[in-house]
Amino acid sequence: MAELDLIAAIRRLLPDPGPDLLRGPGDDAAVVRTSGLSVTSVDTVVEGVHFDLDVVSPADVGHRALAAALSDLAAMGAAAKQAYVALVVPPHLSAQDAEELVEGLASLAGLAGVDVAGGDVTSGGELVISVTVVGSARDEDELAYRSGARPGDLVGVTGRLGGAQAGLLLLRGLAAEIDPSVRRALEERHRRPAALLSLGRDLVRAGVSSMIDVSDGVATDAGHLAAQSAVAIQVDLPSLPLADGFLHVARAVGIDPAVIAASGGDDYELLFTAPPERVRAIEAAGQVTWIGAVTSGQGVTLRDAAGDPVEVTGYEHGRA
Amino acid sequence: MAELDLIAAIRRLLPDPGPDLLRGPGDDAAVVRTSGLSVTSVDTVVEGVHFDLDVVSPADVGHRALAAALSDLAAMGAAAKQAYVALVVPPHLSAQDAEELVEGLASLAGLAGVDVAGGDVTSGGELVISVTVVGSARDEDELAYRSGARPGDLVGVTGRLGGAQAGLLLLRGLAAEIDPSVRRALEERHRRPAALLSLGRDLVRAGVSSMIDVSDGVATDAGHLAAQSAVAIQVDLPSLPLADGFLHVARAVGIDPAVIAASGGDDYELLFTAPPERVRAIEAAGQVTWIGAVTSGQGVTLRDAAGDPVEVTGYEHGRA
Repeated sequence: MAELDLIAAIRRLLPDPGPDLLRGPGDDAAVVRTSGLSVTSVDTVVEGVHFDLDVVSPADVGHRALAAALSDLAAMGAAAKQAYVALVVPPHLSAQDAEELVEGLASLAGLAGVDVAGGDVTSGGELVISVTVVGSARDEDELAYRSGARPGDLVGVTGRLGGAQAGLLLLRGLAAEIDPSVRRALEERHRRPAALLSLGRDLVRAGVSSMIDVSDGVATDAGHLAAQSAVAIQVDLPSLPLADGFLHVARAVGIDPAVIAASGGDDYELLFTAPPERVRAIEAAGQVTWIGAVTSGQGVTLRDAAGDPVEVTGYEHGRA
Repeated sequence: MAELDLIAAIRRLLPDPGPDLLRGPGDDAAVVRTSGLSVTSVDTVVEGVHFDLDVVSPADVGHRALAAALSDLAAMGAAAKQAYVALVVPPHLSAQDAEELVEGLASLAGLAGVDVAGGDVTSGGELVISVTVVGSARDEDELAYRSGARPGDLVGVTGRLGGAQAGLLLLRGLAAEIDPSVRRALEERHRRPAALLSLGRDLVRAGVSSMIDVSDGVATDAGHLAAQSAVAIQVDLPSLPLADGFLHVARAVGIDPAVIAASGGDDYELLFTAPPERVRAIEAAGQVTWIGAVTSGQGVTLRDAAGDPVEVTGYEHGRA
């Protein structure tokens, strides 16, 4: 597909921009009105590394690329404003597939109220989607960083874990005895993750001390909070909230469910810490589960039901 | 090279951030102070499409990727503030080459006063560098769009054209009788283009009506101005200011010099239009050459010394 045709298709497919966007695609750069703080993140996905078009549709790929980027803004508590999309389009991607990818992305942009304000389309040997998202906040009080966890804080997580990983295993053909509607829900969880933008803002207002999105698994992402906050984090594996049907999948794959749940990526739930006096306000903000505690020290310890440490290394959560 | 090692190397190589950057690399997103207008552009380069590591060094690639993105801000008249860099790193790129690429980019960022505030590093099959740059302006009066050209305006260009294209031909081994210092200057022009950020701002202040950077050649880029402004543009080929040594290279390659000069990309000079009463102010802003005129109508006409139209299609300017 010619780059210019795809660019024209992109413009046609994008929702109408909001009032902050003074110049969108078509000029040397986009121009937007700003004030306060600008919050920016970049997320890049590569065919064969982060996704496989035999497993997910082009529209899923577009949705997931934007959702993964927006999830970083959710984890800051920022309001999402614009997205800029760089596409490297290989010869093996048909024009229809390229348009479907853009449709998947544009559809989520519309739902999230995000203007796709610019980007770049170029040819290349493999499909790459790099999404830069820009959010805003009035001041730093409206944001949560990775570095704010303090000894004595509790560790919480939103929603349920493991669904995206279980969905991927099912999409790849894993045979599991599982109710068809539960199966569909798990697959959907992988194909169309949500970015928890309003929940992220509500959690900041409710007083979380640090926050990150669960993109690489609770074990790894808790490690980022621990490192940036210079604290130790304990996670109690039996406390992890598991997606419906997850245990069936874990049984079929023959791996300890807690290990998969702690190391499975792409859930895009929010992992956070909070001082005990904020527990009630946080529980009022949304569905959260308390899964551990912050102490002085460093690193992450995962504990089993007996309180003994568990190693989760050795299970590749397999993003592709 | 492991992604985390490269990320650590990137942080080590980057210049210290300015005071607007509240959070840089290491959190879910970067946080910067803003006000007025934010001006954002994305530029992506792919190995084998936009560059070839047999012809330019990894440091050149890093420099060129950032320069190409910053050049879009120059063409708007925006002040450059932050860059976000997405890297797809293939197995065939050595750790040393990856670091050199980042050094080349970081070095230009330092010179341009741009904070590399975030990004993303992932593995993939081919080297891709996607750079999102963010600039600022107080209001739209400080910016030039592609859409402001009006019938009666003159067409001008900064600097000299064809140097980057001639340099690329020489780097690829073209045999041309040419003074060694002139040859080096042409090659440097390809390897290390400048982004004309302060000249762009000066030209807006001096009253240009529309502006674009010459990334795809004067013929193509004048076409963008004409289309966005809904006007016709005539360019007089004999008026094009040519880089020193350019004629030697054009002779060696056996193609009409004016055709190469009009279609050669990657010069990153600024092409603009301005009403006649702004000519003196614009000439005071920097080295400019008047190369044509805006009329009513549509499209671009390139004219030879006799004033007859010339076709430049058929010469591939060959970005790789």
